[in-house]
Amino acid sequence: MDNYILLIDCPDQTGLVYQITGVLYRCGYNIVTNNEFVDREARHFYMRTEFAGGPHPAAVLDEMRALLPAGANLRLANTGKRRIVVLATKEYHCLGDLLLRHAYGEVQADIQAVISNHATLASLAHKFDIPFHCVSHANLDRHAHEAAVSQVIEQYNPEYIVLAKYMRILSPAFVARYPNQIVNIHHSFLPAFIGASPYRQAFERGVKLIGATAHYVTDDLDKGPIIAQDVIRIDHTYSANDLAQIGHDVEKITLAKALKLVFEERIFLSGNRAIIFE
Amino acid sequence: MDNYILLIDCPDQTGLVYQITGVLYRCGYNIVTNNEFVDREARHFYMRTEFAGGPHPAAVLDEMRALLPAGANLRLANTGKRRIVVLATKEYHCLGDLLLRHAYGEVQADIQAVISNHATLASLAHKFDIPFHCVSHANLDRHAHEAAVSQVIEQYNPEYIVLAKYMRILSPAFVARYPNQIVNIHHSFLPAFIGASPYRQAFERGVKLIGATAHYVTDDLDKGPIIAQDVIRIDHTYSANDLAQIGHDVEKITLAKALKLVFEERIFLSGNRAIIFE
Amino acid sequence: MDNYILLIDCPDQTGLVYQITGVLYRCGYNIVTNNEFVDREARHFYMRTEFAGGPHPAAVLDEMRALLPAGANLRLANTGKRRIVVLATKEYHCLGDLLLRHAYGEVQADIQAVISNHATLASLAHKFDIPFHCVSHANLDRHAHEAAVSQVIEQYNPEYIVLAKYMRILSPAFVARYPNQIVNIHHSFLPAFIGASPYRQAFERGVKLIGATAHYVTDDLDKGPIIAQDVIRIDHTYSANDLAQIGHDVEKITLAKALKLVFEERIFLSGNRAIIFE
Amino acid sequence: MDNYILLIDCPDQTGLVYQITGVLYRCGYNIVTNNEFVDREARHFYMRTEFAGGPHPAAVLDEMRALLPAGANLRLANTGKRRIVVLATKEYHCLGDLLLRHAYGEVQADIQAVISNHATLASLAHKFDIPFHCVSHANLDRHAHEAAVSQVIEQYNPEYIVLAKYMRILSPAFVARYPNQIVNIHHSFLPAFIGASPYRQAFERGVKLIGATAHYVTDDLDKGPIIAQDVIRIDHTYSANDLAQIGHDVEKITLAKALKLVFEERIFLSGNRAIIFE
Repeated sequence: MDNYILLIDCPDQTGLVYQITGVLYRCGYNIVTNNEFVDREARHFYMRTEFAGGPHPAAVLDEMRALLPAGANLRLANTGKRRIVVLATKEYHCLGDLLLRHAYGEVQADIQAVISNHATLASLAHKFDIPFHCVSHANLDRHAHEAAVSQVIEQYNPEYIVLAKYMRILSPAFVARYPNQIVNIHHSFLPAFIGASPYRQAFERGVKLIGATAHYVTDDLDKGPIIAQDVIRIDHTYSANDLAQIGHDVEKITLAKALKLVFEERIFLSGNRAIIFE
Repeated sequence: MDNYILLIDCPDQTGLVYQITGVLYRCGYNIVTNNEFVDREARHFYMRTEFAGGPHPAAVLDEMRALLPAGANLRLANTGKRRIVVLATKEYHCLGDLLLRHAYGEVQADIQAVISNHATLASLAHKFDIPFHCVSHANLDRHAHEAAVSQVIEQYNPEYIVLAKYMRILSPAFVARYPNQIVNIHHSFLPAFIGASPYRQAFERGVKLIGATAHYVTDDLDKGPIIAQDVIRIDHTYSANDLAQIGHDVEKITLAKALKLVFEERIFLSGNRAIIFE
Repeated sequence: MDNYILLIDCPDQTGLVYQITGVLYRCGYNIVTNNEFVDREARHFYMRTEFAGGPHPAAVLDEMRALLPAGANLRLANTGKRRIVVLATKEYHCLGDLLLRHAYGEVQADIQAVISNHATLASLAHKFDIPFHCVSHANLDRHAHEAAVSQVIEQYNPEYIVLAKYMRILSPAFVARYPNQIVNIHHSFLPAFIGASPYRQAFERGVKLIGATAHYVTDDLDKGPIIAQDVIRIDHTYSANDLAQIGHDVEKITLAKALKLVFEERIFLSGNRAIIFE
Repeated sequence: MDNYILLIDCPDQTGLVYQITGVLYRCGYNIVTNNEFVDREARHFYMRTEFAGGPHPAAVLDEMRALLPAGANLRLANTGKRRIVVLATKEYHCLGDLLLRHAYGEVQADIQAVISNHATLASLAHKFDIPFHCVSHANLDRHAHEAAVSQVIEQYNPEYIVLAKYMRILSPAFVARYPNQIVNIHHSFLPAFIGASPYRQAFERGVKLIGATAHYVTDDLDKGPIIAQDVIRIDHTYSANDLAQIGHDVEKITLAKALKLVFEERIFLSGNRAIIFE
């Protein structure tokens, strides 16, 4: 018996939960889990319902749409695996962790390919029998390099692009091609230490905790909606290099946690904030 | 406009959310927040709904009860302050923190009185103009002492009894008098270090984290349903005394967090597990 | 038997630990604890030694100084209580926590007075029998207000000034009068959300953790050396006000932790970084 | 230039640091880092010194021994890679994480072989070109199975044996063969949930945090000295299976952290407590 995930957001009004669950009830579906949130400032309603027990609910959506306020967004997400492409540069820890989980069925995605601007990680991808494409940026301007990367991506038609320590800044044009489909792991507790060398910055600022942030990628560097964050405690004995090394564990765990939330369709975006039904 | 909190649990069946929200909708109430949980193993449904917008909903409960399966529990909780009595012994940190929050309106309760088996904390209670009763256990057996404590408690008719480092073990008879109404803070990460001197035990076991646990008090010492837990990192340089001192902060914060959940009626008990809608 | 704390920093060279402990050994002192750190980048040596067992070690310092490289800093700190003055504005939680600990001898300081630009907290200070001075900023420019505050501070001749949610920005001139003697608690995980309304900023950025930072105050707003930091997990259901309220606990615990480190003389400053021997 | 690690523990007495550093100084060594700890209850002194700058310090040890109290333990540890053998059963997450770090030079050990009582993980070991031995326990009593496992271990003459989710209880006889050389990762926050199915136990107890514990293996099941522990926050929505899955990340990170401490020779054992110089 298939599970379905229904994602609805609309201007808030009285009776929404009743009306939405009523359609599901009359159509004979069982609700497996149900999460709602009302943004009081914006007077906007968000609901994620996982349900089961009937035929494919395409018709249900039409019935529901008729009941909901103008401007409602309804989306029926499948509960299967997501097609993804992973971009990385030279560091192995996030990619390796992802490949391991993937090999043992613990990430709800099919990794179609790994793309990198260096050849370093080819052997890692090959260990796990995942196609690896090196698209070097040598002698290419940003536009040309991104075009080459996009060309490889398009072959795989992914639903999401995961930046697993991909150390190139993406142009707005590239980002616009994949709206809300690119997830990045940034090696700091954003918004602290935006930009380059966050571990060096953290060292120099003398912070007592360092962190990692997984976020959707938008035009605005390191400013997309945050999906997951975590930190670990450090002290003055850590060099900038030590911070980078110990930070790797936080990065890989935070990225994995964020991808689980994304692939299970647990996230709504409200401007630059992510509403997450864990 | 008053807010009401409706707490429902019953055997799970299809359409419960629809039916419950339907009654509220037809009566003209607005749902402020809504939380549901289905325990799949026990096939039991839990729902907490905060709603507003109409007259006192006593009649609503009857209508709802008629729709729900046999064995349903419905409870309408008020959103006002809880009447509480605090029991303590000699340590100031949990009581002091609670009195401070109370003085500034940050705990949703009226502290009616502080009762202690020692006089140590009298001056603390008096600073905050709270009646203090010293009920010494000297020369009394447990039964007689508890009878004396109960007598004081009864004067205040509290909805909850908070054990803010009350270092006496309560008899089953005492506990039975206040079912699910006694909240304790235990100075360990339960179920580790049940019983006496948990910090000494933690020191001897050489753990790397110590914690605190707030729980409902049941007959079974340190085994009641857990409401909140937290830990902090320690190392070999901490003596048992150091652990106790650093542990005080975890204890007071964990107790405060648990009381907020209790007083806001966010907890269902399912056997020995607490289902908490934060 | 008195304990002494010796704080030494100097350019690094071979044999420093041997030479320093040699002087103590020959003078008959017992080392209680010993911490060293060498900053490899700056080639600078830091050592904190707590020792006991002899007469006041003034003479020892001279002997030691002769052995150490040019530019060495030696300081003998007492292990008694520090004289402090606390500045606050309207919020009770940090001041209250500090007064409670102080009343029960758990902060290694004598609070001489509380100064505020509002009268709100007078009753709190008075509960604990601490002099309270309201120095309103109404109708005063910053310079004049700070002069008035300083005048009160000078009466008490404090070793440290604790800003327990003092919501006024201090001028460089004021800060310069108390070098490395002012400790502030900032209600964010610095360097994230520098400046005003950090909880509002955190809400709008949609972070998944909020924090607090205790730091020395320097000319540069929110940029002084960090002493202690901590965070707690939050989610999209928290309003900016909820963040402020839940953040209070992190603030007060972080401030208390930092003050313990300061008053126990466990901190060296190296530029903008704090080297902390916990 | 080689680094050396000197580990000394002895009954405490005045002047130990001075005497030990004096020998190193006269022999022309530079101290890189130095950590001492005195257990006040047991009046015992522990020191770890990393130093460099001279010939192999074998002679130094003799000179030092002559200065130290009777009963002193001195050990010179190399700073190179440790020879290790990894035992696992069916779960991939700890072994996989270790193999990844090993492949990229981030674990200070050479993994000689993986041994398992099942064939499940053979392909994982082979991806990373590590010999894999399946030593099935089918039709063997515990004694016979351990003898077979030991026979494989002996081929590799490892300095440490890492139990990366090896789900068989080891006999005292087996443990005695490798004193303080076996490191295990236990899937709970010990001493909570000793024994089988800790995640099931945690679920049933309704705890709000789950954890993992890396420890040396002794005769006494789950009671050996603790090296590292960590926890993560959970709630009532997690099934026992969910706890197991989310716990995997804590397990692998905690094991990696512990192995780093072990391989860098940062640990002294004092009875059942680990003194760790991080």
